Amino acid sequence: MIYDLIIVGAGPAGMTAAIYAARRKINFIIISLDVGGQMSWSSDVENYPGTTSISGVELANNFRKHLEVYGIKIKQEETVNISKKKDLCVVKTKRNTYESKAVLIASGKAPKKLGVPGEEELLGKGVNYCAVCDAPLYGDKTVAVVGGGNSGMDAAIFLSKYAKKVYIFETRSELTGESYLKEKITNDKKIEVITGVAINEIKGKNFVSSLVYEKAGKTIEIKLDGIFVEIGLITKADFTNVQKNRWGDIMIFRSTRSNEENMTSVSGIYAAGDVTDVTSKQIVVAAGEGCKAFLAASDYISRWDGKHKENKK
Amino acid sequence: MIYDLIIVGAGPAGMTAAIYAARRKINFIIISLDVGGQMSWSSDVENYPGTTSISGVELANNFRKHLEVYGIKIKQEETVNISKKKDLCVVKTKRNTYESKAVLIASGKAPKKLGVPGEEELLGKGVNYCAVCDAPLYGDKTVAVVGGGNSGMDAAIFLSKYAKKVYIFETRSELTGESYLKEKITNDKKIEVITGVAINEIKGKNFVSSLVYEKAGKTIEIKLDGIFVEIGLITKADFTNVQKNRWGDIMIFRSTRSNEENMTSVSGIYAAGDVTDVTSKQIVVAAGEGCKAFLAASDYISRWDGKHKENKK
Repeated sequence: MIYDLIIVGAGPAGMTAAIYAARRKINFIIISLDVGGQMSWSSDVENYPGTTSISGVELANNFRKHLEVYGIKIKQEETVNISKKKDLCVVKTKRNTYESKAVLIASGKAPKKLGVPGEEELLGKGVNYCAVCDAPLYGDKTVAVVGGGNSGMDAAIFLSKYAKKVYIFETRSELTGESYLKEKITNDKKIEVITGVAINEIKGKNFVSSLVYEKAGKTIEIKLDGIFVEIGLITKADFTNVQKNRWGDIMIFRSTRSNEENMTSVSGIYAAGDVTDVTSKQIVVAAGEGCKAFLAASDYISRWDGKHKENKK
Repeated sequence: MIYDLIIVGAGPAGMTAAIYAARRKINFIIISLDVGGQMSWSSDVENYPGTTSISGVELANNFRKHLEVYGIKIKQEETVNISKKKDLCVVKTKRNTYESKAVLIASGKAPKKLGVPGEEELLGKGVNYCAVCDAPLYGDKTVAVVGGGNSGMDAAIFLSKYAKKVYIFETRSELTGESYLKEKITNDKKIEVITGVAINEIKGKNFVSSLVYEKAGKTIEIKLDGIFVEIGLITKADFTNVQKNRWGDIMIFRSTRSNEENMTSVSGIYAAGDVTDVTSKQIVVAAGEGCKAFLAASDYISRWDGKHKENKK
């Protein structure tokens, strides 16, 4: 079976593409391990136009419900390779191989990992990458946020609503990011900032029990119930070798001549949202880009059909 | 007073830009005669992600409410000229002249006019350009739709819910557009299609009373209570001479080097939505583009400030 389109990713870009694809009655699938992408990690979304304030989880849920109106189900599989075989796109997941006329990559970004011993082993057992999702699990506990930038400070402020004690660990000599966040941190008595550190190891048997770090030449072990890693994002696009910029974001192109939008360097492969080099990492932008990429892919699919019909004659 | 930014237009692109500008505490104004743009003309919007179904008027209203949260008021003025005076942008409306560091054009599209006698004089007195807005005024009346493409057929189907009789006038020898609409038209006994015509004049004293048209060399006058002109859209960008494509759409450019989006050919002037050459004319795309254009303009404003601070030294 050759699908018209395979959408990889189910954040705002991928889900918008899927809504449009379903309404056009395109023969497509959407593949993603999670639903909502980074949108689900936001505590409050106040800039999705038309909705003055909503939690990220709720907004992601509204997108999901919109998909369900058209009976779309997301295939919960991990994409490992996207390639072209002549005029066909081949998408390999850990479980299956799918073929299609076009592919729309909207796999977004994922949290950066620390890369220290214990991190992988204790993932979901005290090691977390999403404060908004998991903070409520740490009521009256002691937790640490690794990363003293905007997202780290955000996470710490959010965590202090639940935890009894929140440490922030930052490698530099001071917190970096917006001053009003720094002020909030300073005024929050539950939060303690420890700067100039290097994280060595996360320890724990069945669950995180401590963090080992170095400061000023000394190795220190501190007892903890949970760790939130907030050191930035990486683009999730290892599975494709379309052209990328130096940050690993997929480069997209538009052609004012042929009215094409969101093309990658490979024909038939389109991309949208935070996985691309579009500067604005915003929900409404990802949604708009998902729509643009879908409509461009849809035109490509029509041309594909025309070409292959002619070949059959 | 030099504003940071002037936004021209208050459809989905302009209003999204305004929401972002307000949240960043940018010193800006938004100028538009109408609120909502083409969004307000849609009967049902089923593809704004996260909202399964909503009327266009209601969605436009939600955008407006979102603006009001930040105390933004739209200046109801008609923009007549946008130009640059050295490093400043100058926006002239019929009433005022404003200066700013950057401009964001999001003035969208307007309905094409017939250009026949009586059309201007009877505007709002039986001559209409928006069936969704004005159909309810023609309960049990006889109306005509001029234009037999998709939007004309849409308008006729919508009007037939109210009017007792709906004519469609089309210059070509048959209706053009989607077949399922043609089927609906054929099956609707209230709708009569008259093709191969040229419209000569709209007559009426205080209100439309008849339409004069030519068919097969004969001049015919038909009694009517209202006329809906549905012959397409034109880009509303006469007030600027930034580079446009052959359809009059403002050409926008992105630079992957400098992370710039939605630039026009003139520095400091950005554009977004249906006024641009972006192919997809969709609400969610216009909203996304409005956000992108604002964030690019915002970076430009920072650079502007930096430059002029240095000059002062």
